[in-house]
Amino acid sequence: MQVSRRGWLKNAGVACFGAASGGLATSLCTATTTSGMEPTPLPWPYVQLDPEAVAATAYEMHFKAGCCYAVSASIIGELKKKVGAPYTIWPTELMTYGGAGVAGIGTLCGGLNAAAMVTFLVTGSADKTKNGKASEITRDIFNWYAETSLPTYCPPQPKFETVKVVCRSNLCHVSVSKWCKASKCKISSKEREERCACLSGSVAKYTVELLNAQLAGEFKTTHKIPAEAQKCRDCHDKGSAREDARVQMDCGVCHFTKTPHPKL
Amino acid sequence: MQVSRRGWLKNAGVACFGAASGGLATSLCTATTTSGMEPTPLPWPYVQLDPEAVAATAYEMHFKAGCCYAVSASIIGELKKKVGAPYTIWPTELMTYGGAGVAGIGTLCGGLNAAAMVTFLVTGSADKTKNGKASEITRDIFNWYAETSLPTYCPPQPKFETVKVVCRSNLCHVSVSKWCKASKCKISSKEREERCACLSGSVAKYTVELLNAQLAGEFKTTHKIPAEAQKCRDCHDKGSAREDARVQMDCGVCHFTKTPHPKL
Repeated sequence: MQVSRRGWLKNAGVACFGAASGGLATSLCTATTTSGMEPTPLPWPYVQLDPEAVAATAYEMHFKAGCCYAVSASIIGELKKKVGAPYTIWPTELMTYGGAGVAGIGTLCGGLNAAAMVTFLVTGSADKTKNGKASEITRDIFNWYAETSLPTYCPPQPKFETVKVVCRSNLCHVSVSKWCKASKCKISSKEREERCACLSGSVAKYTVELLNAQLAGEFKTTHKIPAEAQKCRDCHDKGSAREDARVQMDCGVCHFTKTPHPKL
Repeated sequence: MQVSRRGWLKNAGVACFGAASGGLATSLCTATTTSGMEPTPLPWPYVQLDPEAVAATAYEMHFKAGCCYAVSASIIGELKKKVGAPYTIWPTELMTYGGAGVAGIGTLCGGLNAAAMVTFLVTGSADKTKNGKASEITRDIFNWYAETSLPTYCPPQPKFETVKVVCRSNLCHVSVSKWCKASKCKISSKEREERCACLSGSVAKYTVELLNAQLAGEFKTTHKIPAEAQKCRDCHDKGSAREDARVQMDCGVCHFTKTPHPKL
C-alpha cells in the first residue's frame, strides 16, 4: 500500500531510531533537505515492516540481481513505500556489487553485507559513540546465519525443495560449498540458485524481525559466537595475553579442523 | 576546489562510465532528477581524481570512523567537490557499518568493501549484462590487496613506522593477525590503528588509480588469483568435474596449510 508522507504522519507507531522523543521531528526535518541536495543524516526513519512480505519480495528479487541487491532492495523498497523520502533517492541497484560474496569473489555473503548496511542505515549514526546498537544487531544477524539450519524461508511453491544446512560461517563460498556437499548439486545448478534465493528471503526476514524488535524497544541479542570460539578469544582477543586476533566468528570452521591446537 | 555544475560542464575530460558518447548527457539528465526525489541511476559520473590526495584524505578519515568509511568518503568526497550532484545526497557516514570487517566481526576488510561499492557506483548498472567491467576492477583490487606487501601508502610524517606484510586474504582478521605477528604489536595498539589508516590510504589510492584508468579507456586486469588457486578451480569451479566451490580467493591461505590435499 502506498502511504503518503502526510497520511503516514497521521499513523501511530512511527519513530526514528537513535533519537528520543524528538526523533520523528528530526527525521522529517532532515528528510526534506534531500530536495535541497543535502544528504539526510543517519539514522533514517524506520517503521514496522511485515517480515514475511519482505522475505517473499527478497526471494523474487534474488533472481533479478542476486543476494545483496535482493536483501537491501526488499527492505528499502518497503520503506520507500511506507516512509517515502529519504528512501526515494536511494539508488536501489547499488548493492548489486555485493552479490556472490562481492563480484563473485566468494567472500562475505551478500545477503549479510546488505543486512549490515540496512541495519546501520536505520540505527546507525555519524557519532560513533552511538553505534553500539547497530553493531549488536549486525552481530546477532551474522551469528544467527552461521549457526542456523538455513534457509528458514521458502516460498509456498518453490521451484525445488531445498536441503537445509548449518554453514558455521558468514562467507559465501563456505556457505555454498557446504550446501553443494549436502545437496549433491553443483554451484551452477538451478537448485543452487533457488537455495540462495531462499537464503536471501531468510536473511531479509530475520533482519526485519530484529529491526522491528529494536523499534519496539525489545531487541536483545539471542545469537552469540559459539562458546568454543569465545574460549579462543580468551587468549587472542583484546585484553588477553596475546591480543593478536580481532574477530567475532566461529574459529573452528577454518582453524584446527585437521590438526590440534598447540598445547596450552 | 568547489566546481559548480555549470563550470564543470565547461571542462573537458568528463565522462560517464557504462555509456558511449551519450554518457555525459545521460548522467547529467539523471542527476538533476535527484531534486525531484528520484534516485539517480547507475553509473554516477566519474572524473579523474588525484590518487595521492585521496589517499591522504582516507588516511586522516580513518581515525574518525574506520576503514570502510575512510575509503568510501575520501573518494565520494572528492567527487562531491568536483561533480556535485548526485554525490551531494550521499549519506557519507553510511559505510561506517563495514569497519573492522563489518561491525568488528573481522570478516571482509572494510576498505575493500568500500572500494567495491564505489567501483560499482561509478561503473555499474541496473542491467546485469553491463557489469562485467565493475566485477573485473573489483577483483583486481581484491587480488592486489591479497598479494601486495601493504601498506603502499604512508603519510609523509607517520605516527609510527609501519611493518609491511602480504596477507594473502581479503579478510580483516587474517590481515590484522598477520600484521600483529610481523610487527609484534597488539590489535588494540596505536601502531595497529596507524597501520590500518595507512591501509585505508593504500586501498583508496589503488582504487582511484584503476577508476582513472577505466575512465581513460586503459584499464586492464593486472592482478589475478594465484596460479596455485587457479589449479584448485580446475577441479572445483564452474564447468569442472566437481563444481562445488564458487570462489576467487587464494585457497592455500586457509586450506591444506598443515595437511596435504587428498591424492588426485
